[in-house]
Amino acid sequence: MDSCGQENSQETVAFMELAVQQAKLALDSLEVPVGCVIVEDGEVIASGRNRTTETRNATRHAEMEAIDFLLEQWHKIGLSEAAVAKKISQCSLYVTCEPCIMCASALSILGIKEVYYGCANDKFGGCGSILSLHSSSPESLLSGGVQWKKGFKCTGGVMASEAVALLRSFYEQGNPNAPKPHRQPVQRV
Amino acid sequence: MDSCGQENSQETVAFMELAVQQAKLALDSLEVPVGCVIVEDGEVIASGRNRTTETRNATRHAEMEAIDFLLEQWHKIGLSEAAVAKKISQCSLYVTCEPCIMCASALSILGIKEVYYGCANDKFGGCGSILSLHSSSPESLLSGGVQWKKGFKCTGGVMASEAVALLRSFYEQGNPNAPKPHRQPVQRV
Repeated sequence: MDSCGQENSQETVAFMELAVQQAKLALDSLEVPVGCVIVEDGEVIASGRNRTTETRNATRHAEMEAIDFLLEQWHKIGLSEAAVAKKISQCSLYVTCEPCIMCASALSILGIKEVYYGCANDKFGGCGSILSLHSSSPESLLSGGVQWKKGFKCTGGVMASEAVALLRSFYEQGNPNAPKPHRQPVQRV
Repeated sequence: MDSCGQENSQETVAFMELAVQQAKLALDSLEVPVGCVIVEDGEVIASGRNRTTETRNATRHAEMEAIDFLLEQWHKIGLSEAAVAKKISQCSLYVTCEPCIMCASALSILGIKEVYYGCANDKFGGCGSILSLHSSSPESLLSGGVQWKKGFKCTGGVMASEAVALLRSFYEQGNPNAPKPHRQPVQRV
C-alpha cells in the first residue's frame, strides 16, 4: 500500500462509494459483500460484485466479474489485443476489500494502472497483507529474483470502515452458504 | 512439486496426452499452446485450452477455462455449493505447463485434490517455481503465519518435453499477437 490512512480525494471517495453500492447489492443477494468499479478517464466503465454463491464458482470475485465484463465489451467492439492492453493500462479499479492473491495476480497480468481498496484482506490479500503482487520492487516476496510483471500503484484504507461494516453485517446474519457455519446468527430483538 | 522426474503411471500419461491435445488445438488457433483436462473418478469431465487471444482477455488461461466450464455445468444441474466443493475436492487437473500464480490461487480457492503438470513456468509459476501456493506447509512463502487454504498435491515434469516442444514451436513461428515481438521468426528452408 502506498498511502493507507491518508486523506483521499473527493474523486477517490466518490468512486469507492460506487464500489460500496455494488457490495450492498451483493449483500442483498446473500453474497459476501465485496464490490468494485473500473474507471477510465474519470468515468466508470465497468462494475462487479462478488457472485460466488449465484454462480457456484468460488473464483467469481468482484474483480474477476468486472474484468471479464469489460474485456468482453472491448472484444465485441473489435479492439485489438494491443488496444486492450493500452486501455487497461490507463484504468483504475476501486474495490471495497483488498484483492486476494488470485485477483491481484489477474490485475497484474492485465497490467492495470492502479488499485484503490477499502479494508485489508488479512487471510488472502495479494496487495500487501499476505503477498505484494502489486509491487514491482525486488524486495517483494517473489523468489528467484524474477520481477512479477510491472506491478501497479495500490492505495488501501479508502472507506475501510464502510467495507468492514458490510462484511460484519453479512457474517452477523450467519452466512447461509457456509458449508460449516462458524458461528450462530446474532439474535435481533 | 512432489515427484518431478519420477516415473509416471500409464493413467497419468494418458490424461496428460489429452491435455497435450488441448494444447495442440490452442497452437492451431495461434494461441500460446497450453492445455488441460479435469478428471473425476478416472473420467475426463472438462477440458480447456489457453484462449487469451480469442477472448482478448489475458486471464483466460487453460485452467480458468476448464474450471469455469465445469462449474457452469454443475450449476446447470443444480448442485449445491457444498456438493460442488465436495466434488472438486475429488478432482485432479492435468495441465501441460505449471499453473501461474493466478491459476494456482484459483485451484487452491476451489480446493482441488491434485495437479499434474508438464513443464515448469519459470516466470510466473505458482506451484514451486516462483511461489508454492499448492503447499500448505508453514514453510511456504506466505507471510504472517497464515495458512493458504489446505493446498493440493502437485506433481511436475509429466511429459514436460512435449509441452516445451509445443511452446517452442509457437515462439519459433513468431508470436503474431505479441505487442512487441521479441524475436524474428525462424526462417524455414
